Amino acid sequence: MSTLDATHDPALTSWVASANAPGGDFPLQNLPFAVFRRAGRGESFRGGVALGDAVLDLGALHALAVLEGSAAQALALCTQPTLNAFMAAGPGASAALRAALSAALRCGSPLEERLRPLLIPQAATEYRVAAQVGDFTDFYASIHHATAVGRLFRPDNPLLPNYKWVPIAYHGRASSIRVSGQDFARPWGQVLPQGATQPQLAAARRLDYELEVGVFIGRGNRLGSCVPLAEAESHVFGLCLLNDWSARDVQAWEYQPLGPFLAKNFATTVSPWVVTLEALAPFRVSWVRPADDPPPLSYLDDAAQRRAGAIDIQLEAWLDTAGMRARGLPAQRLSHSSFRDSWWTVAQMLAHHTVNGCNLEPGDLIGSGTQSGPLPAQAGSLLELTVGGRQPLTLPGGETRTFLEDGDRVMLRGWCERDGYVRIGFGEAAATVLPALPQ
Amino acid sequence: MSTLDATHDPALTSWVASANAPGGDFPLQNLPFAVFRRAGRGESFRGGVALGDAVLDLGALHALAVLEGSAAQALALCTQPTLNAFMAAGPGASAALRAALSAALRCGSPLEERLRPLLIPQAATEYRVAAQVGDFTDFYASIHHATAVGRLFRPDNPLLPNYKWVPIAYHGRASSIRVSGQDFARPWGQVLPQGATQPQLAAARRLDYELEVGVFIGRGNRLGSCVPLAEAESHVFGLCLLNDWSARDVQAWEYQPLGPFLAKNFATTVSPWVVTLEALAPFRVSWVRPADDPPPLSYLDDAAQRRAGAIDIQLEAWLDTAGMRARGLPAQRLSHSSFRDSWWTVAQMLAHHTVNGCNLEPGDLIGSGTQSGPLPAQAGSLLELTVGGRQPLTLPGGETRTFLEDGDRVMLRGWCERDGYVRIGFGEAAATVLPALPQ
Repeated sequence: MSTLDATHDPALTSWVASANAPGGDFPLQNLPFAVFRRAGRGESFRGGVALGDAVLDLGALHALAVLEGSAAQALALCTQPTLNAFMAAGPGASAALRAALSAALRCGSPLEERLRPLLIPQAATEYRVAAQVGDFTDFYASIHHATAVGRLFRPDNPLLPNYKWVPIAYHGRASSIRVSGQDFARPWGQVLPQGATQPQLAAARRLDYELEVGVFIGRGNRLGSCVPLAEAESHVFGLCLLNDWSARDVQAWEYQPLGPFLAKNFATTVSPWVVTLEALAPFRVSWVRPADDPPPLSYLDDAAQRRAGAIDIQLEAWLDTAGMRARGLPAQRLSHSSFRDSWWTVAQMLAHHTVNGCNLEPGDLIGSGTQSGPLPAQAGSLLELTVGGRQPLTLPGGETRTFLEDGDRVMLRGWCERDGYVRIGFGEAAATVLPALPQ
Repeated sequence: MSTLDATHDPALTSWVASANAPGGDFPLQNLPFAVFRRAGRGESFRGGVALGDAVLDLGALHALAVLEGSAAQALALCTQPTLNAFMAAGPGASAALRAALSAALRCGSPLEERLRPLLIPQAATEYRVAAQVGDFTDFYASIHHATAVGRLFRPDNPLLPNYKWVPIAYHGRASSIRVSGQDFARPWGQVLPQGATQPQLAAARRLDYELEVGVFIGRGNRLGSCVPLAEAESHVFGLCLLNDWSARDVQAWEYQPLGPFLAKNFATTVSPWVVTLEALAPFRVSWVRPADDPPPLSYLDDAAQRRAGAIDIQLEAWLDTAGMRARGLPAQRLSHSSFRDSWWTVAQMLAHHTVNGCNLEPGDLIGSGTQSGPLPAQAGSLLELTVGGRQPLTLPGGETRTFLEDGDRVMLRGWCERDGYVRIGFGEAAATVLPALPQ
C-alpha cells in the first residue's frame, strides 16, 4: 500500500488558485489523470492532470522537457491517446510523475511561469476513456447490495452460500464503455411481461443505474501466473467512478444460467479522471469482518488488508429529469454510500481474479459492483431503493420514479475526506437516457 | 448468405499438388486465413493462407504486387500482425481476395512461377490468434448440451424456460485466448468438496473441454445500432474451432448468481485457421425447429434462416494422454457432432447480441457454446459424456477418465463434406493440460 509522503501534506498550496478552494475535487494533493483534448479543434487526445478548474496538458509538458529522470520517462508515456503504456509502467512511474507534478505546481515552484500556458480550463475540454480497455470485469463486492437484491428473489434466504467466500464477478463488455457525458438510447431486449407465457421484444422499462467504483489495472500479469494478495495493489493504477447501467426486466428473463448479458452490455459510463492509489493513501481504513463470520481463505486474507485494505470513498448518485431541468429544479441525491463498506477490497478482487492464472493487462477495468451501505437509504441502485419497483420515489416537483425514464440524467460523484487531510474528489460520471431508437 | 461461384467448383485443382490430395483440410476451394510466421527466425507475424501442406505468405505476395484492384487493397491489410483491419473491410474484401487467390493458385495460372517461392511448409510455421480480440462472447446455442447439463442439476426440469426464446450467452475473457499448441497449467480455484461446509483453494479436479465453433466478427456496428437478422452474416468474417476449457468444480461453486468466471477465464484455445463464410457456402443447410415448438420472436426469424441459416460443420474432439503417447497408442475420439444441430444460427446470435445496441468490433470473437448432438455419444464435453463424472470413459490401453488429467491433450477438428463438393477443413485446435503451478 502506498505510504504518506510530502505530496499528501495538507499545507501544500498551488500557484493555480482554483486548486486551493476548499471542498474542490482537484487540489494539489490529488493530481488525477485523464485523456483529454480541447473541444472543437480537431486536436489529438493526450494525457492531462486535473488541478482546480484546469487541466495541465501533459503532451505540452513533455514538449517543454522540464522534468527529468523517471518522472520525465513516465511523462513521455502520457503523450499518447490512451494511458495504457503509462499504466503498464507500474506504480513507480506514476508516483515519480505525481511527485514531480506536485513540486512543479506548488506555490513557489520555479516552473510556474513556464507551466501556466499549459493550463486549459476544464470547461473547454473533452475526454475519452483513460485507457483502451481490453477486458472489463465487474464484481459484486457489496454484501449489502447482494443481500438486498437477493431478498427480492429469495426473501427467506437472501444471501447465497458462496457469497461470503467467493469474490463473485462476471465479465462485462469492454466495447460499450463510454466516458461521462456520452448519452445512450434506452435498450431493446427480450422481456417476459408479468403473467405472460411468451416473451416479447420491447424497449426496457426497468432501466437502472449502479453506483460503482472502477479500478484501472496498471502492471499486468502473465497468463498462468497469479498475483498474491500482498502484491495486488502494485498492479493497480487508480480508481474512477463507474455506472453499470442495467435493464432489470431484460436481466430477469435472460440471466439463467450464465448471468447478465444484454441487460448490461449496452452502456457503461466511467468518469474521465482516474485517481491514483498514491493520492488515496490518506484515506485507507481497516477492512474488518463481523466477529461471527468466518475469515476468508488465506489467499484473500493478510494483516495488511485487515489494517488498511479498505478505502473510505464517499459515493453518491444524483438524478435530474427532463421535467426538473425544464423547471430549474436542482438534482436529487438518490444514493450515498462508502466504498469502505465493501465486503471485498480491491486487492482481494485482484488476488481472486488471478488465482487461477487469468492474466490482467494494463488498462483493464475492474468494477466493484454496486456499492450499497448497510442502511436502506444507502442503496446504490433503483432496484433496491424502490424495492424492486414496488415503492416509487418522489422527486422535487412531484414526479415519481421506480426506474429511469427517457430524459433522466444520472450523475455519480465520489470523494474522500478525513480530518487533517485535504479533501480529494473523483469528478463525476454522468449520462442521460435517450429514447429507444426504432427497431 | 454467400452464393456459390467459381471458387467452389469441385473440378478446380491447384498447382500446389498437396492441395489436391483427397480428404485434406485445405484444398483450393477453402483458402482459410491465419496469422503466421516461420518458426525460430524472429520474423514478424503476417497473414497467410493455407493450401495443402503449405502456407502462402500474404506479406510476400503483397510485396510482389501482382494482384490488382480490390483484391490488392484487401491483400495490403493482410500484411499486419493481426487481421483486424482485413476483417473490418467486410465480406467484399475477403471475397475479392479469395477469388484472386483462387485464380492465382489454380492449375494453369500464369502466376505459378512467381508464387511458388512464397509457399512455406506448414511444418515450419507458427501462429498466433488471427485477430486482436476486443471482446469474447460465448453462447450456449446447443439445446442438446443445455438439456444434458441441465439434467445433471434439475432431472425433472432440465431446460430452463428462457432457453428456446433467448440465445443465452455470457461475456468471456479476451486476454486468455490462445492459439492451438499453447499449453496451459491446470487452474487453481475455490471448490466446495462434497459434504463440506467450507470451501478450499485447490487445483481444479473436474477439468473439462468444450467443443465449440468460433466466429470472428468482420465489420462492426456502432454503439446504439442493431444488426438486423438479414444483414447479420455481412458482419461475419469467418469461423474457427474453439475450446472453452472449463473447471467444473470451480464453476459449480462460483456461478451463482452471475455466471461462470474463474471456471473458464484461465484459457480458451482457438484454431489458427479461420474459414471464411464464402468457403462455407456449399455447406449451408436449413435451420428448422421441431413442429411443436413455438417460432422464435420475429427479430430472430426469417425465410433465409429457415432455408439455409445453419451450416453443416462436422466437429470432433480427440484425446490422448501422456500414457497413451508413451505407449504409441492412437488418440481416442471422444465427441462427434455437427454445428447443423445448433438451436441458434450464427446470424441469430449476432442479431440477438446487437438488438440492445451493443457494438461489435472487427476481430471480436463469438463462441457457439458446446456443440452436442441429439445422441448421448454426440456430447461435446466430458461433463456430459461421463454424466457429471459418474460414468468414467475407458481409453485405449486401459486408462479411465472422468475429467482431464495432467498431460492429457485435447484436439478439436472440424470439416465440411457434401456430395458434389470438395471437402474443406478447419485444421485443429489442440492443447495439453500441464500440472498446476505451486501457489
